[in-house]
Amino acid sequence: MQALTAAPLDPRWKLAPQTPEEWKAVVEKAALATLARLPGIRESLGVDVQPTTIAGVRAFIVTPTTIAPRNRKRVLLHLHGGVRVFNPGESGTLEAVLKAGFAGFKIVSVDYRMPPDFPFPAALDDAVTVYRETLKTTDPRNVGIFGSSAGGSLAVTTLLRAKAEDLPMPGAIALGSPTVDLTKTGDTLFTNAMLDNVLVTQDGFIRATALLYADGHDLKDPRVSPIYGDVHGFPTAILTSGTRDLYLSNTVRMHRKLRAAGVDAVLQIWEGQSHTQYLRDFHAPETKEYHDEIARFFDVHLRP
Amino acid sequence: MQALTAAPLDPRWKLAPQTPEEWKAVVEKAALATLARLPGIRESLGVDVQPTTIAGVRAFIVTPTTIAPRNRKRVLLHLHGGVRVFNPGESGTLEAVLKAGFAGFKIVSVDYRMPPDFPFPAALDDAVTVYRETLKTTDPRNVGIFGSSAGGSLAVTTLLRAKAEDLPMPGAIALGSPTVDLTKTGDTLFTNAMLDNVLVTQDGFIRATALLYADGHDLKDPRVSPIYGDVHGFPTAILTSGTRDLYLSNTVRMHRKLRAAGVDAVLQIWEGQSHTQYLRDFHAPETKEYHDEIARFFDVHLRP
Repeated sequence: MQALTAAPLDPRWKLAPQTPEEWKAVVEKAALATLARLPGIRESLGVDVQPTTIAGVRAFIVTPTTIAPRNRKRVLLHLHGGVRVFNPGESGTLEAVLKAGFAGFKIVSVDYRMPPDFPFPAALDDAVTVYRETLKTTDPRNVGIFGSSAGGSLAVTTLLRAKAEDLPMPGAIALGSPTVDLTKTGDTLFTNAMLDNVLVTQDGFIRATALLYADGHDLKDPRVSPIYGDVHGFPTAILTSGTRDLYLSNTVRMHRKLRAAGVDAVLQIWEGQSHTQYLRDFHAPETKEYHDEIARFFDVHLRP
Repeated sequence: MQALTAAPLDPRWKLAPQTPEEWKAVVEKAALATLARLPGIRESLGVDVQPTTIAGVRAFIVTPTTIAPRNRKRVLLHLHGGVRVFNPGESGTLEAVLKAGFAGFKIVSVDYRMPPDFPFPAALDDAVTVYRETLKTTDPRNVGIFGSSAGGSLAVTTLLRAKAEDLPMPGAIALGSPTVDLTKTGDTLFTNAMLDNVLVTQDGFIRATALLYADGHDLKDPRVSPIYGDVHGFPTAILTSGTRDLYLSNTVRMHRKLRAAGVDAVLQIWEGQSHTQYLRDFHAPETKEYHDEIARFFDVHLRP
């Protein structure tokens, strides 16, 4: 993890794609790099990944070699990160593969639609569809939802929509450095700018992705920036960030908002880590420790 | 709280007292300022403070007007902060007054001895003495220990000593931005330097106070920097910091260390706050919210 902390700034913050084709080229390049790493990680962790379609939404069923007896009725929904444009298709399964391997849960990873072809609300529609379908076969108390970055934000907007549609809440959620505010609000957007070596700055590429996703909608719309939504009635939650994370403020503001709404939300912050670096190296002891914490949290709070 | 966040850097980080007399003058000036504020705060919150002596150690009994029935058998030990030199006598009771007023607990605030006259281990000896005496009349499951900054660190060293002496652990502890490492180790000592407007930097005055306190002992001695101690068997803990806190890393490293030792430790981080700013303005909504969180924590974890 020290090597990741010491790495130079990711130069992609300077990217400024102008056309749909340029966006797709940026996304494709990143996806190929992830796809090249995935088979080795799956093999090391003993995880199987199968594509599927759920009520018309593409998804992947991510299964560890062994599922503990108390996890057999449980399912986790995974909403991948990637600033709302990265990680299409199988490249979006990385976090789910890590979670399945380290934590021993069956996972449904949603391959939600993304810009430039499908801006808001396509991703939200897809996530809610998969959640609704899951509830047809699974008790909500057996269901956990997790995701990092854009995926953590999408988890929150999914629950806001579920509330509005009178769907039951899941048993627990895990939000990793969730992008709950797309406006430039939050202390660490300023104090950790040019220090977080993953996101680097809210300006530049990140701001471009936010505008591309929002597609003209107000960035303060709670369906886009769920920190502005009403989280009363949410299930118990665990939130994760790092001391150098550009979204440390997004995370602690969401934690406070959940606590203020009476939700039993807990927080973990990792020393020296930039945005979601707990997913970057599956050999790092901190990666296992992170997944162990989340696994324990779901184990305590989901119905067996 | 926004006004506190926007305040300029506390210029005292440049102070460099050279003689015991110069140290005492710095301490006295700060104490007088706090003493001037205390009567108004006590009156507003309805808190009574009486000096006492416990097995030779000076202390204050801090009592709210009303103690809830479920708190009548409970007592909180308070170890004040102030970089191990500030807040002698009644000026050390501020945090205890706030806690008594907001949370409704009876509190024993330890007026432990400090440098320049009494360096390490005087403060630790005094804290352990009061804890040992408290156990003679109170079930340890009814006892909580709390403190911020140097007081949070002293709470941890007190428990390390209690373990070594086979004293039982208290029911719960609350550590506010604890100075658990006096060496210059920790990410935010660097990333939040000149940003935290309370402590400002680990260098300068803070380093001088650490050396004055340690009095020639190794700063890595766990009795001085308890992050290097063995915290297995510690009671459940709540830790608090802010995104601009110079000791954010001290706090999250201690949280991780407790979790890794199997301790049920939880964490709360406040948006934009520098070191222990949750104690600075008792009118701020965040101050009440902070004390409400700690009160709820003790209420859940101490035996009624």
